[in-house]
Amino acid sequence: MRICDICGKKEAKIHLRYARISLCEECFVKYYLNRMKRTVEKYRMFNREDRIAVAVSGGKDSIALLHAIKTAYPEYDIFAIYIDLGIDGFSEKSREIVSRITDTLDIPLVIYSLKEKKGYTIMDLMNTRYSRRICSACGILKRAYMRDVARENDATVLATGHNLDDVVEIMITLFIEGKFKDILSLNPAEPPTHPSQIKKVKPLIKHYGWENKYYVKFNNLPSVKINCPLSGGARSLRRKRILSKWEEDEPGIMRSIYTIFTKKFSPLIKKEEVVLNTCKICGGPAIGEICSRCKIEEEVVKMKYIGEEEI
Amino acid sequence: MRICDICGKKEAKIHLRYARISLCEECFVKYYLNRMKRTVEKYRMFNREDRIAVAVSGGKDSIALLHAIKTAYPEYDIFAIYIDLGIDGFSEKSREIVSRITDTLDIPLVIYSLKEKKGYTIMDLMNTRYSRRICSACGILKRAYMRDVARENDATVLATGHNLDDVVEIMITLFIEGKFKDILSLNPAEPPTHPSQIKKVKPLIKHYGWENKYYVKFNNLPSVKINCPLSGGARSLRRKRILSKWEEDEPGIMRSIYTIFTKKFSPLIKKEEVVLNTCKICGGPAIGEICSRCKIEEEVVKMKYIGEEEI
Repeated sequence: MRICDICGKKEAKIHLRYARISLCEECFVKYYLNRMKRTVEKYRMFNREDRIAVAVSGGKDSIALLHAIKTAYPEYDIFAIYIDLGIDGFSEKSREIVSRITDTLDIPLVIYSLKEKKGYTIMDLMNTRYSRRICSACGILKRAYMRDVARENDATVLATGHNLDDVVEIMITLFIEGKFKDILSLNPAEPPTHPSQIKKVKPLIKHYGWENKYYVKFNNLPSVKINCPLSGGARSLRRKRILSKWEEDEPGIMRSIYTIFTKKFSPLIKKEEVVLNTCKICGGPAIGEICSRCKIEEEVVKMKYIGEEEI
Repeated sequence: MRICDICGKKEAKIHLRYARISLCEECFVKYYLNRMKRTVEKYRMFNREDRIAVAVSGGKDSIALLHAIKTAYPEYDIFAIYIDLGIDGFSEKSREIVSRITDTLDIPLVIYSLKEKKGYTIMDLMNTRYSRRICSACGILKRAYMRDVARENDATVLATGHNLDDVVEIMITLFIEGKFKDILSLNPAEPPTHPSQIKKVKPLIKHYGWENKYYVKFNNLPSVKINCPLSGGARSLRRKRILSKWEEDEPGIMRSIYTIFTKKFSPLIKKEEVVLNTCKICGGPAIGEICSRCKIEEEVVKMKYIGEEEI
């Protein structure tokens, strides 16, 4: 039996190769929470004056985030937001898990259903030209509604469950695509750049995805175990698999990549003051006259209309 | 039977996923040579006025390079250099293959044997503090002697078999280590920066390693099939394996990474005028007073001496 390297008493249940330590369940949970607290403090993500909206999808990352924030800051003003995207065989299950965990943790939950409020679901996007980049379009919608719902519920900050794997994968993808300036916006804390926005923070940016999985497991939390059925061949998932293999081969490599991007690469890039417009339809941030969300929704409406005509 | 996409006659023997074409042996060889010629011309690597030294190790890349240069430029002044590093179970076999191919191609061969000229081999480095970074130390020695032998034989340019995989792996490694300025020196053609140096060129920088393998195969050329026995756990080999998996998953990704580094990343980096010193021992380029090669050799001498004393 391998003994925990921190308490020296209980059986170690997890080995962190990047740190070369083995930990028992309790010590891992403490170690995990401490890292999150240090991240929250270092980047001044929020404090007791804030009203914190936590974006929850039902996956391991956001479930871990919600539980960890509630555990680390029990007296803070926290609520959860779930955007029901209406994805067949996925959203219903996710919604049920999110309802269950917020009940257990006694955290208010705001559900925003695309179907109920807007009359369409992500499934309808499959009939538009967005079907070939469904993950990107879905992400635009999810972020836009998350922002609106957070603001409408008086949140001062929106926390998302982005983990180290997510951020490193996005950094690499943006690098390869030559979108160097966009890498700057992958900060742990992003202040709003348009009146319709609120501050966004990533308290788990220093945690590996598999650490979130173990946090959820050791705390006996429910979580959605399957990937979204529409994300099948998503390049981001495939790239994360490559990154996992690399991490397996060189423990700690993702942390090194993250550090180089933030500490050495980002200072080379000149930040441009992008002045965002206000979308003529929804009032949200836009680069042109109409924001990406409203463009997608125009397409959905058009397709639905054409569909009905043809029948 | 799949037909060649270029000649439309012969059976296709190789599929280039990154370019989505299938080629017969003859068309592949032409396609391969054309790309090399375009690279040589684009970067003005050499012309008929030059005396070209080709660094040959016996591996697929350098054998392909030697054959390709001779085939593309039969009337040019070409000779080969082989540095015999004295690696047990490797160097002898490599030397024999290099002798065979240069004989067949009727190319003069200059062999420089560390054992004969300097009285030591790479095996002796295994008893020094360099044993833990043997590939790096061996590389320093190989490059220094290659440069000296090329110059002593009146070469005006030194061609090496670096392929796309090599260069992309080095770019990524330098990036992760934060050695951004060193990425600038991975140019296809590097002019000398010290009087002891000659111009160095990489005519195969746009070719994948596996393309060199097929070039060698289709031309029935001999080559060393094993990796150096001392390179066992080399990080560079492991990283290349990860890159191969990525390329398998996303054909063309290595070309994209190479392009981003050269076209978009390099312009961000300020080139520093590093004035190289002249090594007090050998007269080669040095950063301090003594060059890296001479430092390694001092260590070898010290260890051999201590070894003898102790016996």
